[in-house]
Amino acid sequence: MTEKLSTETRKTLLAPLTDNGWELVEGRDAIRKTFKFGDFADAFGWMTRVAFWAEKWNHHPEWDNIYNTVNVVLTTHDVDGLSTLDVKLARKLDSLAG
Amino acid sequence: MTEKLSTETRKTLLAPLTDNGWELVEGRDAIRKTFKFGDFADAFGWMTRVAFWAEKWNHHPEWDNIYNTVNVVLTTHDVDGLSTLDVKLARKLDSLAG
Repeated sequence: MTEKLSTETRKTLLAPLTDNGWELVEGRDAIRKTFKFGDFADAFGWMTRVAFWAEKWNHHPEWDNIYNTVNVVLTTHDVDGLSTLDVKLARKLDSLAG
Repeated sequence: MTEKLSTETRKTLLAPLTDNGWELVEGRDAIRKTFKFGDFADAFGWMTRVAFWAEKWNHHPEWDNIYNTVNVVLTTHDVDGLSTLDVKLARKLDSLAG
């Protein structure tokens, strides 16, 4: 069962992400990051790898793409805020972006 | 050489698109449409097919995806407005969405 991040776990889990370029979205309990790639094929190739993990974990990003840029927002609709699923997916996105 | 749609060609070329759910974006010379699919895999599968055509034609959509929904905006940055490339890509998107 997915649960909203508690105040304590939030600090511990989000700190490495904010160190890595993630930031809190204003007015929503969500995090966001902009990923830049060499070109469209690189950007979409990364999105495709992300898509498989998102589907596997049944946890999907909100994202937009313009050419070589992908803006990602992560939140967990079921708990109306951030959960460990977002932390897990954020780490995966970073790792796939290498 | 890609050229901005002239006033005459614009009417002829855009009419079938607006009949098919495309609309002009306010404040920009661009068109947009929202595509809905059964689930994320369907939506992203369609995006992947679109991506190959976009890359082949070197003309890329601005798009966002949330689960089963994809919002697409088409415009031609090189001419700062709509060109025949947008019309061609819009038709392809519709045809791939079947």
